[in-house]
Amino acid sequence: MAERITKRSDDYARWYTDIIIQGKLADYSPVKGCMVIRPNGYAIWEKMQSYLDGMFKESGHVNAYFPLFIPESYMKKEAEHVEGFSPECAVVTHGGGEKLEENLFIRPTSETIIWSMYKKWIMSYRDLPILINQWANVVRWEMRTRLFLRTTEFLWQEGHTAHATYEEAETETKLILDIYQRFAEEYMAIPVLVGKKSESEKFAGALHTYCIEAMMQDKKALQAGTSHNLGENFARAFDVKFQDQNGQLKYVWATSWGVSTRLIGALIMTHSDDNGLILPPRMATKQVVIIPIWKNDEHKSMVMEYTQNVQRMLSNTIDAFLDDREQYKPGYKYNEWEMQGIPLRIEIGPREVEQNQVVLVPRDTKDKQFINTDDLGNKIKTALVTMQARLLENARKMRESNTFEISDYNAFKEHIDTAGGFYLSHWCGSNECEERIKEETKATIRLIPFDQKGSRGSCMLCGSESEQQVIFARAY
Amino acid sequence: MAERITKRSDDYARWYTDIIIQGKLADYSPVKGCMVIRPNGYAIWEKMQSYLDGMFKESGHVNAYFPLFIPESYMKKEAEHVEGFSPECAVVTHGGGEKLEENLFIRPTSETIIWSMYKKWIMSYRDLPILINQWANVVRWEMRTRLFLRTTEFLWQEGHTAHATYEEAETETKLILDIYQRFAEEYMAIPVLVGKKSESEKFAGALHTYCIEAMMQDKKALQAGTSHNLGENFARAFDVKFQDQNGQLKYVWATSWGVSTRLIGALIMTHSDDNGLILPPRMATKQVVIIPIWKNDEHKSMVMEYTQNVQRMLSNTIDAFLDDREQYKPGYKYNEWEMQGIPLRIEIGPREVEQNQVVLVPRDTKDKQFINTDDLGNKIKTALVTMQARLLENARKMRESNTFEISDYNAFKEHIDTAGGFYLSHWCGSNECEERIKEETKATIRLIPFDQKGSRGSCMLCGSESEQQVIFARAY
Repeated sequence: MAERITKRSDDYARWYTDIIIQGKLADYSPVKGCMVIRPNGYAIWEKMQSYLDGMFKESGHVNAYFPLFIPESYMKKEAEHVEGFSPECAVVTHGGGEKLEENLFIRPTSETIIWSMYKKWIMSYRDLPILINQWANVVRWEMRTRLFLRTTEFLWQEGHTAHATYEEAETETKLILDIYQRFAEEYMAIPVLVGKKSESEKFAGALHTYCIEAMMQDKKALQAGTSHNLGENFARAFDVKFQDQNGQLKYVWATSWGVSTRLIGALIMTHSDDNGLILPPRMATKQVVIIPIWKNDEHKSMVMEYTQNVQRMLSNTIDAFLDDREQYKPGYKYNEWEMQGIPLRIEIGPREVEQNQVVLVPRDTKDKQFINTDDLGNKIKTALVTMQARLLENARKMRESNTFEISDYNAFKEHIDTAGGFYLSHWCGSNECEERIKEETKATIRLIPFDQKGSRGSCMLCGSESEQQVIFARAY
Repeated sequence: MAERITKRSDDYARWYTDIIIQGKLADYSPVKGCMVIRPNGYAIWEKMQSYLDGMFKESGHVNAYFPLFIPESYMKKEAEHVEGFSPECAVVTHGGGEKLEENLFIRPTSETIIWSMYKKWIMSYRDLPILINQWANVVRWEMRTRLFLRTTEFLWQEGHTAHATYEEAETETKLILDIYQRFAEEYMAIPVLVGKKSESEKFAGALHTYCIEAMMQDKKALQAGTSHNLGENFARAFDVKFQDQNGQLKYVWATSWGVSTRLIGALIMTHSDDNGLILPPRMATKQVVIIPIWKNDEHKSMVMEYTQNVQRMLSNTIDAFLDDREQYKPGYKYNEWEMQGIPLRIEIGPREVEQNQVVLVPRDTKDKQFINTDDLGNKIKTALVTMQARLLENARKMRESNTFEISDYNAFKEHIDTAGGFYLSHWCGSNECEERIKEETKATIRLIPFDQKGSRGSCMLCGSESEQQVIFARAY
């Protein structure tokens, strides 16, 4: 199987698609731009959902479900919002065999339908805050699509909260950003930068947008999650006011935030290699596969008995999966499970039985380790924890060695063309410079990092004074 | 709050809506026929999902996700299927600002899109069975809608499996029916009848449909889940063949099965009362609420200290929620938590402190029990288990005392008009008799029970010979 995967060095985009199709993570559907998420891919999404949902609930959020359809007139109530999203909407014009009186947009995001409900639910400060999240499908009509990264329909979670003050909304926005960062790093082993989007890159309808950004293996950036402070914009559009403790009527403050199935693309492009998917242990449904090896019947019964003992030893600590299919050779099995990204492989042959050991092969390093079976469960657990940390560390090193501080625009243009990567540079804050850099280099401002060294400088393009450095990169 | 709930004896339909709106389970949305599932209602759906998903996975099923959109031409490939579903479809005609070349139907169910993919995935017997489930939203354009029971958009799970033989498909269909029955009875405390649908009531495109049917408090039937043996119908429509072990090409056998958010309606109409929702303990996120009672500050500190001790005692076994809000009186709190259906209430006043006891009030019986705090955790656990069993038992008794064996059609017509209920009666099997009975009495054949006494008889309408009894009832 592995031979069908294009090498990364030959064609990164084809490699990415091969990983997904051959690993049965997703498939193309007969509907243009829509994918099918196959069980192997959906299992990763279920892991993501379960961790994130736990973190949301721990911080006081609850789930709800709002309609898929948004009346055209609702979509139009917030001016920037409709301008940003309307061109990418799918429109239902007929239902039940008849033309509808008003067209229904399929939600590209749910601010408008949700704030029309918040108007019914919010009267007084006692009704605040509302901390609601929704797991849902959304549709954005895309011209050029790529599996997981950009599909017409995708799955995501969208949080929509309502608060009494700007400060509360701001605290919420940052709380969620922190959850996204922890989730990306601790569970997905994807190191991320955190910061603010520039005005031109913020969400349509937001006061400002915070984000987490990751670097893929090909040195391109990928936006992995966003958290928006929406200010009073949607409350004004839907006339949502509350009576405060002094009896005064005030507009409600809003946030929204989301991550999507696109993260599966990020996971693939952070860790995987030319043999297939690499899953961090915490994202793997099957963490360990045991493969017995024998050449004759005598060996077979000896190896199988020993293997079952090993599985029993592990059963208290690890859910190890035994691949005892007889119609396939060990090498075939190695390839298959490497393709599917199972973190650890245990090989057991006659020599292991003799030596009272197992061979342990982590998916990422492929280092063969010969391990005595004493306290095996804990050793395997440790190997999983070590691998989880190693993947994060390696990705962080990759990003660090491909992040450059730069002040000369011509040098930047040349460097990004040959090396890609992240460029920390001063920017005057003007839309003009941002636009010209984008046109000339295809690099966008990925974020204005929270973590600033505080040094003033001058814009790499126009030379005007600048108070902050930003990250420029080409992005997915 | 409770005073706003209409009494069941006054108007059952309004009572049902009041429970939902006042209990904040759901709300009407600005989109005709679509509801918003609010956090209280969605928490019930999450419980349902978690139990069912566990049962599906335990029996070897995996989750996946298929597109929301179905090309019009795909929808039309199975003749009965399109006839059944096409009139209720919502149709997308425009996307990304342009008219589409082919209209896209929003899935009313996913057989067609899924079987178009199975054609790509199934080549040989080695690819079978496929045991896939999907959690998704679907849309069926409805003229008359009711919260949870019949909404234009609803949430559900739909299983779609592929098998090598009719027998395997049949085994799967019944396995799932069994899961549905166990889930309904053991978790939802809703007793159900199991059996087969008549030809006119089966799924559009199925060979035959099995179902679970429940009786609501108003003596009407509610279809709570269906499992279909689809035969070779979809394999033929999408030309899905596999090579069997002898190298012969054969059509693949299919099943599909689903339950939906409609079950939340069934839960409400099985257990709740004039004071609000009643949740079986296993379906409640919050199982126990503790309400401290005092009249003066001296009592307050004494009661609060004792209450915290009680909560600590319980913390190992039960997640008890303390309602210590000072701005509300105990009576107000009782009403509020009764409305929301929390299974057990613990009241603690000065007398409880003195007597080293608590007052325990189950939501359904409202019997006050004075309970010594020794081994309190286990006592509460037992009370929850007892309540779970009691709710099922009461519902079963209700159904049994409202199920009538009947052979005279005129007596049936009169009886169902005055008493409602289930009617076990002989039916000749003809579509004509079924239709006429439906027209004249509004009763439909809910199911042909698996459990037949084996007695032959004669059709209650035409008198022809009949080999089986069926259940007639008016239904939601």
